[in-house]
Amino acid sequence: MSSFKFTIQSKLGGGTLARAGVLETAHGQIETPAFVVVGTKGTVKSLNPEQVRDAGTQVVLANTYHLYLQPGDEAVKKMGGLGKMMNWSGPTMTDSGGFQVFSLGAAYKKGISKVVQTVDPSLLIPERFDDSDAPRLAKIGQDGVSFTSHLDGSVHYITPEKSIQIQHNLGADIIFAFDECTSPTEDLKYQEEALERTHNWARRSLEEHNKLNSENKVALFGIVQGGREERLRKDSAKFISEVEVDGKKFDGFGIGGSFAKEDMSTAVKWVNSILPEDKPRHLLGIGEPEDLFMGIENGVDLFDCVLPTRLGRNGTIYTKTGKIHIMNTEFRTDISPIENDCECYTCKNYSKAYLSHLFHGKEMLAGTLASIHNVYFLVNLVKQIRQSIIDGTFFEFKKSFLEKYLK
Amino acid sequence: MSSFKFTIQSKLGGGTLARAGVLETAHGQIETPAFVVVGTKGTVKSLNPEQVRDAGTQVVLANTYHLYLQPGDEAVKKMGGLGKMMNWSGPTMTDSGGFQVFSLGAAYKKGISKVVQTVDPSLLIPERFDDSDAPRLAKIGQDGVSFTSHLDGSVHYITPEKSIQIQHNLGADIIFAFDECTSPTEDLKYQEEALERTHNWARRSLEEHNKLNSENKVALFGIVQGGREERLRKDSAKFISEVEVDGKKFDGFGIGGSFAKEDMSTAVKWVNSILPEDKPRHLLGIGEPEDLFMGIENGVDLFDCVLPTRLGRNGTIYTKTGKIHIMNTEFRTDISPIENDCECYTCKNYSKAYLSHLFHGKEMLAGTLASIHNVYFLVNLVKQIRQSIIDGTFFEFKKSFLEKYLK
Repeated sequence: MSSFKFTIQSKLGGGTLARAGVLETAHGQIETPAFVVVGTKGTVKSLNPEQVRDAGTQVVLANTYHLYLQPGDEAVKKMGGLGKMMNWSGPTMTDSGGFQVFSLGAAYKKGISKVVQTVDPSLLIPERFDDSDAPRLAKIGQDGVSFTSHLDGSVHYITPEKSIQIQHNLGADIIFAFDECTSPTEDLKYQEEALERTHNWARRSLEEHNKLNSENKVALFGIVQGGREERLRKDSAKFISEVEVDGKKFDGFGIGGSFAKEDMSTAVKWVNSILPEDKPRHLLGIGEPEDLFMGIENGVDLFDCVLPTRLGRNGTIYTKTGKIHIMNTEFRTDISPIENDCECYTCKNYSKAYLSHLFHGKEMLAGTLASIHNVYFLVNLVKQIRQSIIDGTFFEFKKSFLEKYLK
Repeated sequence: MSSFKFTIQSKLGGGTLARAGVLETAHGQIETPAFVVVGTKGTVKSLNPEQVRDAGTQVVLANTYHLYLQPGDEAVKKMGGLGKMMNWSGPTMTDSGGFQVFSLGAAYKKGISKVVQTVDPSLLIPERFDDSDAPRLAKIGQDGVSFTSHLDGSVHYITPEKSIQIQHNLGADIIFAFDECTSPTEDLKYQEEALERTHNWARRSLEEHNKLNSENKVALFGIVQGGREERLRKDSAKFISEVEVDGKKFDGFGIGGSFAKEDMSTAVKWVNSILPEDKPRHLLGIGEPEDLFMGIENGVDLFDCVLPTRLGRNGTIYTKTGKIHIMNTEFRTDISPIENDCECYTCKNYSKAYLSHLFHGKEMLAGTLASIHNVYFLVNLVKQIRQSIIDGTFFEFKKSFLEKYLK
């Protein structure tokens, strides 16, 4: 009996693909749509697990690439697996390391990120990837990817089988097939070759997962790629939906790729119109409030993004009227909270003037308090969107929120 | 009616000056002896107030010098004072800025710290002073101290009156008279001159405090100086005990100075034999476990020190068998907690291997978890010493603890 189950509770209808559901895992339920909080190295940066939970987080995603290099997947296993190691009792996910293929291989030093159309330079960093740890060499072959560790110069070779073995050692509830995320600047020929590799790797990932998942506790998501090409995206959605090994298919789906803002909704719509309705879909490495509305409207159930904690550490803070930078002069004497009606720990207990002081003083608590608010903001936004699907008020909520937020 | 009251509950006797008491402030009681946790800029580095409280902390001390420069004492006052600003509801203290006179004036660049006799280079940093923020100019005159801000190059002049005004704006429960802390390398003539200044400044501090303390909510401690000279220390203890302005004396005492380890106990004993028994005594900027036993045995009620958080951020962790460095290879695969019988949050929830991973990964949670343990360790050690005074088992406890700790 699988620990994993997905139930749709409510559909918005009206030409949208939006739905509210519940995803059951071996470590508890996730109400979807849900914002997944990223803890790259097995810690959500600057927060402890109680702070992560109190900000409303349901599920944490760690990066396979980072944990494989340090402390090593065997070490994580020895510590009881990702959740036990980091003292997080709720559901966990790991990505496959495939995004690193993109960041470090084809797209390396091309300045390409998950979202390329943006005015804010801080967003030009690949969102799911901590570039301070970037290895300096990665090479993609038909069988897998080789790269040199940024930590000690050691050479590593990751195949789909290896990625799945590592992820089973890490021990998350939901894991991902190994994929290649291409750059939108690559030509069609490369996109086709890469997609063939991704599909081949998907099948091999599923095969390896079946061998290791005898207790049926872990869910494997396949990743749809295909860049901005409608034909490739649809081919990929179809292949990943249907691929079967020993009678088993993927338990859910990731939608991968580096998107220009204006391409994202089309690609998501193409894919989600094809993916089977009864399985969850995760839009990888996204996003910003406007992306969350777009994704959910087009049938996305899960999002993950490092922005709330990355921006928080830099003093950039989400508010319902747009992002603010807390180090600006105007906030030095502002004794009101970030948002008067926000229920997060930071807003209930601290003023903007104190936050400003902490950032100017380079105090560690600064990043913690800002990250708590940002995580709460995005997690809570997705919860509100979920409720608006159930209530049938999605479009009113979207309009009123984005009008103020994007003003 | 003063909010401040000190009651001695139990004396150890046996030729010692050790006692257990209770200090009442406008923000609650402090059971003494107590270890005061330092929050230099109005935040205990890497911890939020709940973590500070859960580690057993009774009282937090902030640095007047730092808060005066940023965000400014008027800004702190506007935020509701130190405690409200930082969301700490318990008792608070501020020092007078006098220690900066020492660090930045006479002793500047002489490599002299609170504890000069030590084998651990990390301890050679002045313990109460965050040297990353060191101004580069300080000049001592008869009337006060001038210095240049490290933040913006602005020139400031602090007199005893100014220090007390600033501290009243900061709004702590216990504040200190402005003093000059001399270096033990200065000659007797300089020590005598400096002590005369300190005594003059003590009287002026008391006078200014009386003007500002009409509600009688704030306690002012005078600081005893005098270096390693028996005559000067005793003169100072006598003067600071007896000095009176408008019928009011100091509510308690700080013992200041930069000590060589072997001088400390003599100086503390000289002073505490003279200071009135019914008022609390604070040994400023100390200390290490062995210093805590020494100080308490010789009649000290309060200690403050940045070491638990500073060492914690560097990965140096207190244990009952001495300090360990968590980044050492042996801990990478050690899945036991720092101490099996420790009741701190870190030991109850995390392994040494995970802590090691966080430090190697330069994750912010690393410093937080290590600081929580270190604060708990020292705060709890002083609580145990307090209990041993009440139980009459001080010497047995001291022997058994230090035998293991200093092994």
